[in-house]
Amino acid sequence: MTRLQDCRALDAQDPLRALRDLFTLPEGVIYLDGNSLGPLPKAAPDRIARAVREEWGEGLIRSWNTAGWFELPQRLGDQIATLVGARPGEVVATDSTSINLFKVLSAALSIARADAPARRTVVSERSNFPTDLYIAEGLCRERGFTLQLLEGEQIRSALADDTAVLMLTHVNYRTGAMHDMRALTRTAHAAGALVIWDLAHSAGAVEVDLHAADADFAIGCGYKYLNGGPGAPAFVWVHPRHADRFWQPLSGWWGHATPFAFTPDYQPAPGIQRYLCGTQPMLSMIALECGLATLLAARPLGGMAALRRKSLALTDLFIQLVEERCEGYGLGLATPREHALRGSQVCLTREVGAYAIVQALVARGVIGDFRAGRPDILRFGFTPLYLRFEDVWHAVEHLREVLSEEEWQRPEFNRQHAVT
Amino acid sequence: MTRLQDCRALDAQDPLRALRDLFTLPEGVIYLDGNSLGPLPKAAPDRIARAVREEWGEGLIRSWNTAGWFELPQRLGDQIATLVGARPGEVVATDSTSINLFKVLSAALSIARADAPARRTVVSERSNFPTDLYIAEGLCRERGFTLQLLEGEQIRSALADDTAVLMLTHVNYRTGAMHDMRALTRTAHAAGALVIWDLAHSAGAVEVDLHAADADFAIGCGYKYLNGGPGAPAFVWVHPRHADRFWQPLSGWWGHATPFAFTPDYQPAPGIQRYLCGTQPMLSMIALECGLATLLAARPLGGMAALRRKSLALTDLFIQLVEERCEGYGLGLATPREHALRGSQVCLTREVGAYAIVQALVARGVIGDFRAGRPDILRFGFTPLYLRFEDVWHAVEHLREVLSEEEWQRPEFNRQHAVT
Repeated sequence: MTRLQDCRALDAQDPLRALRDLFTLPEGVIYLDGNSLGPLPKAAPDRIARAVREEWGEGLIRSWNTAGWFELPQRLGDQIATLVGARPGEVVATDSTSINLFKVLSAALSIARADAPARRTVVSERSNFPTDLYIAEGLCRERGFTLQLLEGEQIRSALADDTAVLMLTHVNYRTGAMHDMRALTRTAHAAGALVIWDLAHSAGAVEVDLHAADADFAIGCGYKYLNGGPGAPAFVWVHPRHADRFWQPLSGWWGHATPFAFTPDYQPAPGIQRYLCGTQPMLSMIALECGLATLLAARPLGGMAALRRKSLALTDLFIQLVEERCEGYGLGLATPREHALRGSQVCLTREVGAYAIVQALVARGVIGDFRAGRPDILRFGFTPLYLRFEDVWHAVEHLREVLSEEEWQRPEFNRQHAVT
Repeated sequence: MTRLQDCRALDAQDPLRALRDLFTLPEGVIYLDGNSLGPLPKAAPDRIARAVREEWGEGLIRSWNTAGWFELPQRLGDQIATLVGARPGEVVATDSTSINLFKVLSAALSIARADAPARRTVVSERSNFPTDLYIAEGLCRERGFTLQLLEGEQIRSALADDTAVLMLTHVNYRTGAMHDMRALTRTAHAAGALVIWDLAHSAGAVEVDLHAADADFAIGCGYKYLNGGPGAPAFVWVHPRHADRFWQPLSGWWGHATPFAFTPDYQPAPGIQRYLCGTQPMLSMIALECGLATLLAARPLGGMAALRRKSLALTDLFIQLVEERCEGYGLGLATPREHALRGSQVCLTREVGAYAIVQALVARGVIGDFRAGRPDILRFGFTPLYLRFEDVWHAVEHLREVLSEEEWQRPEFNRQHAVT
């Protein structure tokens, strides 16, 4: 049996332990929801206050140049590139994940239409994050493609000569299961299809190497593992072999080759810059830069490889402690045990009471989240930047108490309301 | 001749003079660029700091519910509605102006395709803000429509049986000329076309009554006259007769009827909510609410009608003072003198040196901006919320000195760089 002091010993040896100081975490909270909204970087309040008072308040319109606002999508894109195996100049931080998916799926369908007009199907996973499916549903309808939704294990064999695009989320938002990006991309290419990866639950959470996988397009989220703050701008990557082939249809002035020439006709900028559209929300962009700084601070300590090692150790420990200490309470495991198949979260299942159990944990300061479905899911995200092994021990101990004392049956934990 | 003391007398009688206290304006600056980036509301730094430290830092994921983040697009939309003659529940604050134009133009083209398939032309103005033209160019190409660009005075007579959509910016960004929204909408409807109005330079600047004009669609900007901060989210309005007819193609989860049901198929929400797409940048949204509060504070003092009266008095005074005090320096007037044809800015022309004159003025603390073209334009925005008649007097006096002493000829004022 693992004991609390074993967990403390792991913390004492943790080469990443100093990174926790980069965050402001509320007293008494064990935060297992960084996969939904990353916590506040300690540097963010002052940096944002400076952007508000000095850049906006004093600099006013001049700050577009003097504070470098106009270059932020590219500058942050270059920082994100280092986390996902992309090169400088290949990524921009901009808009929302949904809108960036619209851009890259539009481009992919245009390429398919030009190169392989007989291919009329977009393949995705039925349990993909719904907004990805909604965007694909709308675009397929508009462009005359068919959206085919499959279970994860059916995907490989379904790729065929009518597949134009395979569109997947790398780590599943509900289960934490991770696809083999390299193998699936190879299979899809062998079948003649393009591949789009949504990195919402993998950028900053697991090692991603877009070039090694030879992916075609990728998008991702700024406010989960990148710690960019609520609704932070998302990002988009396009392989250089595709970037200049087509306009994406959101052809706004920030994607123009010469945005300040104010010409009446659109001339797309070369490369990833054409995936920009309109003016970006600078305060939220600046918060995203603070979030990225917390990940870049891990670079001298081993970067994403070291973060991934600790992430797996944390999720392994959580699974082990739940099985040791919460046996007999009807919990199941929805997340794969095999490291190669797991992202940075652990999802438990329970026939009844999952929502109330999550609420009871939140009331105790252990913040995870609930996802309805069959089965319902208790979702716990593990961010190695600030979580300690000791936190995992306490989280499981709270879970055990909520279950053993039937605390979750209290009425106040059974009132449903929206949770993102 | 108007004297400084005459201007001071106007300020003393100004019923809106107290509103200036709602802003933080840098010492020594006369800010004539609120039409490009509104200045900092005094309440914003504390409100944003609270959002960062308390809502993000302490509340974490819980703030989506407890801090009302999820409802912000609708709440701010309802506030914007009061400024543009829309009703509660008809406007959402979201995304960028370019992206919102994409949504409404897509919807308008879908309606035209359904109701009047022979109509294949989108009419706009050649001097429209370029991003509007770029978005229209891309969409027309994708959907098989023709984009027809005309001079302002040609538009009425060009509307014909092949016109699907008339898409105009209400107040021209370069010249400050304002279209007659009601008359042009009536003419377009008589010709069988739908009308989209871009209110980027009119929302918060002039009186707008979308329902009285019977407009079909409108979009606008959050960071100009709405004072929402750099890159603040934009807004979108759709007449209720159209709102439920079609999906807009950016069918993301925030536009879903039940976003938290996480169903794999898209069911658009009723009304304007379906014009939302992905998660919005909350810090920038919260800054926008601070900006809107400065306009809503004018309501007990007469609201947009009172702001418009003062705006016209400010622009009249500027024109008059330039003509009285800067005669013989080669300045022309690009903005119409007639009140009904003028927004809230005054644009001067000069054969040579316009860029350098603007730079010399900025160095003196008089911030306007430059727009290249034939002729080049010196652009000055007048925001009645915080500008005094005395400021107008001093601005013109600085302009006179820059011209009479040929200060603009100095090399440091003749180095070009990007200005938004």
